Amino acid sequence: MKKTTIVTIGSVLVIVPLFLLAISINGNKAEQKTITAAAHAAQTKGDIVPQIKKFESRSSEWGKYYQRQYDSYRQTRKSDKITDMLIDYPALVVMWAGYGFAKDYNAPRGHYYIVEDNINTLRTGGPVDAATGPMPTACWTCKSPDVPRLIDKIGELDYFTGKWARHGSEIANPVGCADCHDNETMRLTITRDFLKRGLDAEGSLKAKDATHQDLRSLVCAQCHSEYYFKKTKWTDKNGKEQTAGVVTFPWDNGFSAEAMEKYYDDRSFKDWTHKVSKTPMLKAQHPGYEMYKTGVHGLNNVACADCHMPYVREGGVKYSSHNVGSPLDHMANTCLNCHSEEEKAFKDRVARKLERKTELNKTAMDVIAKAHLEAGKAWELGATEAEMKDILQDIRHAQWRWDYSIASHGSFFHAPEETLRILGSSINIGQEARVKLRAVLAKYNAGDFAAPDFSTKEKAQAVVGLPYQKLVDEKMAFLNGLRKEWIEQQKAKGLYDPKAWEDMKFNTSYAPAETK
Amino acid sequence: MKKTTIVTIGSVLVIVPLFLLAISINGNKAEQKTITAAAHAAQTKGDIVPQIKKFESRSSEWGKYYQRQYDSYRQTRKSDKITDMLIDYPALVVMWAGYGFAKDYNAPRGHYYIVEDNINTLRTGGPVDAATGPMPTACWTCKSPDVPRLIDKIGELDYFTGKWARHGSEIANPVGCADCHDNETMRLTITRDFLKRGLDAEGSLKAKDATHQDLRSLVCAQCHSEYYFKKTKWTDKNGKEQTAGVVTFPWDNGFSAEAMEKYYDDRSFKDWTHKVSKTPMLKAQHPGYEMYKTGVHGLNNVACADCHMPYVREGGVKYSSHNVGSPLDHMANTCLNCHSEEEKAFKDRVARKLERKTELNKTAMDVIAKAHLEAGKAWELGATEAEMKDILQDIRHAQWRWDYSIASHGSFFHAPEETLRILGSSINIGQEARVKLRAVLAKYNAGDFAAPDFSTKEKAQAVVGLPYQKLVDEKMAFLNGLRKEWIEQQKAKGLYDPKAWEDMKFNTSYAPAETK
Repeated sequence: MKKTTIVTIGSVLVIVPLFLLAISINGNKAEQKTITAAAHAAQTKGDIVPQIKKFESRSSEWGKYYQRQYDSYRQTRKSDKITDMLIDYPALVVMWAGYGFAKDYNAPRGHYYIVEDNINTLRTGGPVDAATGPMPTACWTCKSPDVPRLIDKIGELDYFTGKWARHGSEIANPVGCADCHDNETMRLTITRDFLKRGLDAEGSLKAKDATHQDLRSLVCAQCHSEYYFKKTKWTDKNGKEQTAGVVTFPWDNGFSAEAMEKYYDDRSFKDWTHKVSKTPMLKAQHPGYEMYKTGVHGLNNVACADCHMPYVREGGVKYSSHNVGSPLDHMANTCLNCHSEEEKAFKDRVARKLERKTELNKTAMDVIAKAHLEAGKAWELGATEAEMKDILQDIRHAQWRWDYSIASHGSFFHAPEETLRILGSSINIGQEARVKLRAVLAKYNAGDFAAPDFSTKEKAQAVVGLPYQKLVDEKMAFLNGLRKEWIEQQKAKGLYDPKAWEDMKFNTSYAPAETK
Repeated sequence: MKKTTIVTIGSVLVIVPLFLLAISINGNKAEQKTITAAAHAAQTKGDIVPQIKKFESRSSEWGKYYQRQYDSYRQTRKSDKITDMLIDYPALVVMWAGYGFAKDYNAPRGHYYIVEDNINTLRTGGPVDAATGPMPTACWTCKSPDVPRLIDKIGELDYFTGKWARHGSEIANPVGCADCHDNETMRLTITRDFLKRGLDAEGSLKAKDATHQDLRSLVCAQCHSEYYFKKTKWTDKNGKEQTAGVVTFPWDNGFSAEAMEKYYDDRSFKDWTHKVSKTPMLKAQHPGYEMYKTGVHGLNNVACADCHMPYVREGGVKYSSHNVGSPLDHMANTCLNCHSEEEKAFKDRVARKLERKTELNKTAMDVIAKAHLEAGKAWELGATEAEMKDILQDIRHAQWRWDYSIASHGSFFHAPEETLRILGSSINIGQEARVKLRAVLAKYNAGDFAAPDFSTKEKAQAVVGLPYQKLVDEKMAFLNGLRKEWIEQQKAKGLYDPKAWEDMKFNTSYAPAETK
């Protein structure tokens, strides 16, 4: 045969199967619905026209039209384990003495439990009416789609004024559809203005310039970011001066631990005064977005949703899973989309990252807890403000940096290098405080002072003088009283969504076994 | 037209250019020589049959047959900058007080300079004959292909016996071809038995099981690994008992900083006793291979040579560059082979890795240097062995870990997480020593002792009492005396390779300007 004949025959052998394959693919495509963030348009081409009210906080109402997303969202209820971090790391009790987290701190469960856990934690106390309890209204802000609804209704400054219990009858639904989606277009949308203000202050990505891919992280960043409650004076409609505690992102100098530390120092801001060491303290609140931006995934603009809300297939339908959790639980849809690795080897590497963080984390906690107790001893022996000033500043910075580096979920994975760097810096500053403290203690004849034992949660809570049973009793009274009233009020207002509470079981670290 | 007709015409339009392209590629291939580690076979098919003696230490002899590799190897002479690390980091002088590195320590230059720099450094002193000078023979071991030649000639234990100056007339050539290649097959080969023994003791990769890809890292690991000089008794041919200092890799418990620390502790081994703090010290010696194994490149079996000796093209010829240096200097042939990134963005990320390491590195150096000086003060005031025991153990461990994490070249890149973890641990242990020291100092009425200023190389060398000018004078006398004799002897023995010294200029951190 001539060469050209061979080529022609060969080409037919190659092309025909390719052609048949193409027909087959096209056939599949016709059947397949791809449900993405732009699903609204597709849905409205069918028989069902979604009717979702603006600020509809009941996710089950959205679920009527976006059933797969809703079903997957409800799977977050399977992440229901209570892990008492104060048992695992008793040093935390010492580090947070005088602050809510020393009372009760569990590892977070699924989004489904976010309101229930906020109501049950000892941190939010046992209010007896709208004006009592330890926490301000701001503590609801990241928990519920009722928050943007309420802010729209009464205004942001009014929302941020008063005690946590004031909004108990309004906050009825856990984080859900309305926190991230526009009710008409289903597009991702920022529902918390403080994120927009934070982004604009930081400057590298103005809120108005956010792309769809940016928003696939920014809707998460509304809550998974560092914030504080900024005291803001305002005048209500009756002409009365009020003070709001407005959730504010301290991003003016940048996202780094040092940039935010400077922000707070420049404003002499403190979250609380430490009960033992008298240090003006900062509490870092999950700076997840900021940490993620420094890691390899963030630098490559891999969005939160790419790994935590991966596309999944059910039959011919593809949609973004709303069962937000660890990507390692379903690697075929997450990590392995980009990484060609053996699943086992991959998990081992991630485990090693966690081990490294845990090592330095434990060291930092031990150092800082000891520094607090040694400072407490120094005060007790008569140390002066002048002697203690630098020491307290060191303790403040050491604990801030430690907290920044570990408070954000998954920092060990999102930004392992930044996490370890900051922990190293925290350890150093905490130990600097201890070197200085040793000299002060020696001056007061206590150079050999050894901090009391804080090796269990109970011992640590005794060391810092925490009235644990009283807190539990107050909480139980609240749960059996005011909290039940709230639910009735929510039902009367049409806010209560039975689906959001369907499988809820009372479950905490402190409840007596028979009530669980 | 019918569908089948369209397909046939279309297929010809696609297939014919593909066919022509295939012919063109085949044509190129015929012209192209791929010179790899198996190049020997290809070479011998030509006119030239390589005639390279076993243990030929003169690389120019190999270069007669492997000209491109040799030319690229000689490019390492362009990495000729002298960077005095003791000027950049004066704390090093304090940390190494009583040890050679406090005298003189420059950042390494290219392989071309490795023997010259070993001869010029103040660390190797100013011997006046074969039996004088501060260093043992082992200090040549990683510098020259004359070492395996000499070991073959006189035996390993004899080689490792005596003073450094003993082998001066034998070590004539810098690291070169014979360090890594078999003279007959050109295959990669381990020429240092201590690596084989180390691998077998560690156990995860037995030396006999090493693949070609493994060897592309292991030939480097012969030198870029942690080692110590193990005292080994033997009897010479005259029946006289001798003690060799055999280069030994402390890998029995594993590659990690902690595993080797335990190895040394279990043997009560020390490299020297610190002049100021009296601590039994360890000097980490570039554990580059060990660190690399913990990083993402090592875990993915990317070999040293993949990045440091990339394949390059010259005309139609492709070969492995032997200009070992930073992959960032020619990213198109290295990083960008695997990573699809903008070169600028990539370099920025690497720079950030270096910044993180530098931050914790500086902190650790400051902490440890102060601990030494504070311990020195405590001894001076009369502290007892019992009071100091734990403190010295902390200082030993802190400095070992610091040194392990930064002594290996490029650890900040090869294993950034492991580097930062170990630095964090080093800082913590160093500060623990300082907390304890503060109590001891206070006991001797020096609770407010401040370490003397060590902020410049000169100040630091004065603090630790280093007779700098005397060391320089001795070195210059050696260079103008014994060293010149060595060169004449090397020439007489046929070891001297003029090409290996062609562009050599005397260049050190200490020489007076007029001699440079």
